[in-house]
Amino acid sequence: MKPIYMDHAATTPVDPDVLEEMLPYFSTLYGNASSLHSFGRDAFDAIEISRERVADLLRSRKHEVIFTAGGTESDNMAIKGVAYLRKDGLTNQKGPHIITTTIEHPAVLETCRFLETQGFKVKYLPVDQYGSVDPKAVESSITKETFLISVMFANNEIGTIEPIEEISKIAKDHNVLFHTDAVQAVGKLPIDINKMHIDMLSLSSHKLYGPKGIGALILKEGTKIQPLIHGGGHERGLRSSTLNTPGIVGLGKACEIAQKRMEKDNVHVSGLRDVLLKGVLKIEESYLNGHPKKRLPNNVHVRFTAVEGESLMLMLNDKGVAAATGSACSSRKLQASHVLTAIGVDPARAHGSIRLTLGRGNTKEEVSYVLDVLPEVVNHLRMMSPLWNR
Amino acid sequence: MKPIYMDHAATTPVDPDVLEEMLPYFSTLYGNASSLHSFGRDAFDAIEISRERVADLLRSRKHEVIFTAGGTESDNMAIKGVAYLRKDGLTNQKGPHIITTTIEHPAVLETCRFLETQGFKVKYLPVDQYGSVDPKAVESSITKETFLISVMFANNEIGTIEPIEEISKIAKDHNVLFHTDAVQAVGKLPIDINKMHIDMLSLSSHKLYGPKGIGALILKEGTKIQPLIHGGGHERGLRSSTLNTPGIVGLGKACEIAQKRMEKDNVHVSGLRDVLLKGVLKIEESYLNGHPKKRLPNNVHVRFTAVEGESLMLMLNDKGVAAATGSACSSRKLQASHVLTAIGVDPARAHGSIRLTLGRGNTKEEVSYVLDVLPEVVNHLRMMSPLWNR
Repeated sequence: MKPIYMDHAATTPVDPDVLEEMLPYFSTLYGNASSLHSFGRDAFDAIEISRERVADLLRSRKHEVIFTAGGTESDNMAIKGVAYLRKDGLTNQKGPHIITTTIEHPAVLETCRFLETQGFKVKYLPVDQYGSVDPKAVESSITKETFLISVMFANNEIGTIEPIEEISKIAKDHNVLFHTDAVQAVGKLPIDINKMHIDMLSLSSHKLYGPKGIGALILKEGTKIQPLIHGGGHERGLRSSTLNTPGIVGLGKACEIAQKRMEKDNVHVSGLRDVLLKGVLKIEESYLNGHPKKRLPNNVHVRFTAVEGESLMLMLNDKGVAAATGSACSSRKLQASHVLTAIGVDPARAHGSIRLTLGRGNTKEEVSYVLDVLPEVVNHLRMMSPLWNR
Repeated sequence: MKPIYMDHAATTPVDPDVLEEMLPYFSTLYGNASSLHSFGRDAFDAIEISRERVADLLRSRKHEVIFTAGGTESDNMAIKGVAYLRKDGLTNQKGPHIITTTIEHPAVLETCRFLETQGFKVKYLPVDQYGSVDPKAVESSITKETFLISVMFANNEIGTIEPIEEISKIAKDHNVLFHTDAVQAVGKLPIDINKMHIDMLSLSSHKLYGPKGIGALILKEGTKIQPLIHGGGHERGLRSSTLNTPGIVGLGKACEIAQKRMEKDNVHVSGLRDVLLKGVLKIEESYLNGHPKKRLPNNVHVRFTAVEGESLMLMLNDKGVAAATGSACSSRKLQASHVLTAIGVDPARAHGSIRLTLGRGNTKEEVSYVLDVLPEVVNHLRMMSPLWNR
């Protein structure tokens, strides 16, 4: 049997059309986009077409797209970029205060924690039991010192979609910059950086059927940042490095496809998700993590009493199903997920969680198969558990 | 006629064997290397094989290879990484003094210039008429405050190979860290980071027939740096971001091929180079830039009196030959090359330079063709120049 991949929040396969569009740029149209000869100009032109495609998906302008090596770099570039400018006194930003949340991706959390060692103050806002950030709490946390608010668009673990428009409106009203890590949302949710008052948005190619190693920071015109990487002056001096033509072409194509397919994909994926979730929740003492309604169309995140999530994941793997415990970024670590802790799940119980994230390629048959094996596996693990007394 | 590519210092085509090895990791073995299921483990294993291959080429140990998005990021990570640790008082480094040279790549130069705005002092050592750095000048520039010396292995524009072993020995003797931007040297010159006492070495995949958007920093065990990019803790916490499996696999394969083919490639390429250079220098009032002996095997860099390098490059392009004026990184800028200025070429004359950099794929026939058209083109441009009075 072909393995079933249900870990699309960790990464996605590259769409065949994306790969096809990338291929010529490896060995035929391989010029350096900075070169002025034909090889260079061909690369440059392809990159500009991709920039347009990325911009179209986010309703930004072309020159507001800065290509990076991925979502983590984009988050670092946005947050440190604004913070360091402020520190150097090169902007009229107010004070050393940043507002973020306890459920951000480590790319944001660790960047903020690092900035705390550099003299910045960070407020990590708590969330409710569903992982939702309260816009009122954001507003009441703003001080005269606040120069940046960073709240993720949708959570990578439990799939909760945050009230970004309300929060960004508050940021704008208080003249505070707003950044969002939209790595999980781009390609799944319609985003308009202007209507939504987003100053900076991070995205990653490999979460939307594009290649790994490429991403972008959407930087709204007029938003000033200090570069993270200095050098030859690429990307208007904001991100130096020879442009990764095949990667950029892949990201561009992935954005184009996402824009065309978003509705259709969401109908397909959320349909499967509903069947999967309903079936999984039939298992005794199983509980949904994250918001029941305001959640990503592809996310099923469930915890089971008296089950160890890692064992569950490994047994599912043996049965040919790829699932995740917590987020991929922390799956080689042992501590309980910071997101589950933040929504109030007892650390002992948090470990009993599994994340199944669907994608374009998943089928009804795959969902049926998972619904066949998952209860067996849960039952098997419970039979061996001293915590399960039935 | 198939266009002739002679700009391998700007970038190289991806070797077909490299691309073949990369392909499965886009759409089949697409797992996130941090995931614990089979998809993730396959990616993880492929990455570790690549790490070994990169390590082999540089004679480093596997865990000393940190994957980055390219040479520019590696340079920034090395230099800022050491500098910031020092600034934070987390190391016993001595003072805020860095020694580098006037002919470094912008990735090093601009990083150093940026650090000057952050309270660091930087000595930019001059070079001689061939672009060679004098090890004695390095030694006499060391002060009690010097914590880092960064000298490139070989120059990207004029191809001069620097006396790295002598310089790194001096650094070691004075207990100063040594970094080298070896982007142009890796795959062309044998490098042993231990014998050569190199603490940090930057390399880029797309300069050695690997894909763009991937590189590495070789960080000798015991060398401490502050990460440039914070997040999920990848690469031992030094460079967070989902690992770019296809890119890493490509870089690994490119290193493996380079190690096997280096001698053979160098014989082929330097043979062509000698023919090309001899032929080009037959043109009246043409002068070699860079060292006549200590130069990269593939580099021909020549200036012509009363010729505008950009016109020369564009006319060659019309004749199907891709060449460069100065380095690719600055070719969209108008100022004279900082390297040619550093070797004492008058700015007015510096513009009359062209760089032809050969690669594995170039042939005798291509060299003959270039030697046919180049004198014609130079002559044509001179006929139109008021500076050419014959």
